[in-house]
Amino acid sequence: MPEPVDPDTGDRGLGSEEIRSHLEAAVVAVETAGPIALRYFRSGVEVANKAGGAQFDPVTSADREVEASIRSDLGRLFPGYGVLGEEQGVVESDSSLRWVIDPIDGTRAFISGVPLWGILLGLTRGSECLAGVMHQPYTGETFLGTREDAWLRRSGKEQALRTSTTSGLSSAILYCTHPSMFVRESDRSGFGRVAAASRMMRYGGDCYSYALLAMGQIDLVIEGSLEPYDIIPLIPIVEGAGGVVTDGQGGSALGGGIVVAAANPELHARALETFNT
Amino acid sequence: MPEPVDPDTGDRGLGSEEIRSHLEAAVVAVETAGPIALRYFRSGVEVANKAGGAQFDPVTSADREVEASIRSDLGRLFPGYGVLGEEQGVVESDSSLRWVIDPIDGTRAFISGVPLWGILLGLTRGSECLAGVMHQPYTGETFLGTREDAWLRRSGKEQALRTSTTSGLSSAILYCTHPSMFVRESDRSGFGRVAAASRMMRYGGDCYSYALLAMGQIDLVIEGSLEPYDIIPLIPIVEGAGGVVTDGQGGSALGGGIVVAAANPELHARALETFNT
Repeated sequence: MPEPVDPDTGDRGLGSEEIRSHLEAAVVAVETAGPIALRYFRSGVEVANKAGGAQFDPVTSADREVEASIRSDLGRLFPGYGVLGEEQGVVESDSSLRWVIDPIDGTRAFISGVPLWGILLGLTRGSECLAGVMHQPYTGETFLGTREDAWLRRSGKEQALRTSTTSGLSSAILYCTHPSMFVRESDRSGFGRVAAASRMMRYGGDCYSYALLAMGQIDLVIEGSLEPYDIIPLIPIVEGAGGVVTDGQGGSALGGGIVVAAANPELHARALETFNT
Repeated sequence: MPEPVDPDTGDRGLGSEEIRSHLEAAVVAVETAGPIALRYFRSGVEVANKAGGAQFDPVTSADREVEASIRSDLGRLFPGYGVLGEEQGVVESDSSLRWVIDPIDGTRAFISGVPLWGILLGLTRGSECLAGVMHQPYTGETFLGTREDAWLRRSGKEQALRTSTTSGLSSAILYCTHPSMFVRESDRSGFGRVAAASRMMRYGGDCYSYALLAMGQIDLVIEGSLEPYDIIPLIPIVEGAGGVVTDGQGGSALGGGIVVAAANPELHARALETFNT
């Protein structure tokens, strides 16, 4: 069956084979950029202050160079596509297909020397996330997914990823990068209720937490203040492994903000209900 | 100059050469145990509940097997020495020299699939920490120190470790594994004051935070509820790189509890003062 045509752009969608070939191109792009990031990792990198003043929002040369490398690779292979990147903004396009780049997700982990940051690259068509990749060059791991399947590649080996079957909150391991992600009091208390009902809650992790969720190692990730590029590339990995990713109301997570990611629909429903009670 | 004789045991102390040879034996012992731990890492390991009931304190077969391997190696090479291990308790000895083992520091990270746990092994003589090793087998890193020097070994390369020169709290990056480590209200508020005065505070890390401190990547680690074996093997690594490790009052950290570890004496004094204000 041919893929449906986008009513706005006239674009045909991508079939499974085409999604896989885009995914492999994305893997090459992030793994090519890995050594660039590693040159700056633990090297006494100069930290710029994007926010200026008291608010601390580190951006490094690594961020900028990684994104430039990925944009250059993708621009050559997919010249007509849109691009959204953290550092260099949006390239508009007539195509409904758009690459979404977070050159270094977890810059605070990066500048601290913690190897849990990642290079993120996703492909969207309108409001659909078709494929996503997360690469951690220090550990040599690449997590990739198409919403139908997800894999971890390391040292030339590939393993399929499968989320856990944990369905009750009292058995669930919950992760969140930092409590300051929840700006509204209602979100803070919602997170507190889920944490109190969980078996264990840990902070830290950035994009790596979503990879652990896809691997079945942890069961829930609930975060706030996310940008679209922080979460879009991770959605196909988590969903390809069997998980569910939504915003705080159970709607699309593509806009960022509050994100509730769970190992399976049952646990997701329970977490969402407890978060919003 | 010969090392002083211990008045209680009649033991002679160890010279620098002897400390180094003990350190190398410790490196072999933890690196031999690494593959044992990795067999259980991300393998759907059964989690026992040491505390029983509602309190969650995971202990895995990995913990027990790693400690048994290290005890066996050390027992062969150093038959007269005392041993303190998390899992199998104390072996008393007439010697003032004692090996201190934490087979898997960061079992919560371990069961979550986060590669920031470590195999810890330290050597004490009375109240002195002579040498310490932390091994992270998934990332392939071994951090080691003698209080005079500290190094990171990875992929056949060795680099000397040096803490940062950050002397002001407002420039410091502070780490702590989890806020629940602070049981007393005064400790919680003391930590809150240091965190508020710091450039950045992040949770997570376990033993890995002390390795990042020794590398000069972060500047402060303040934690609570530590057991002696959680911190003893890390002291020679941090101090060998130029840092300072004490308890919450500025005294010896060997007893565990509250630990204040800083990149240098100036920052340590400021953190301690702010913690106790």
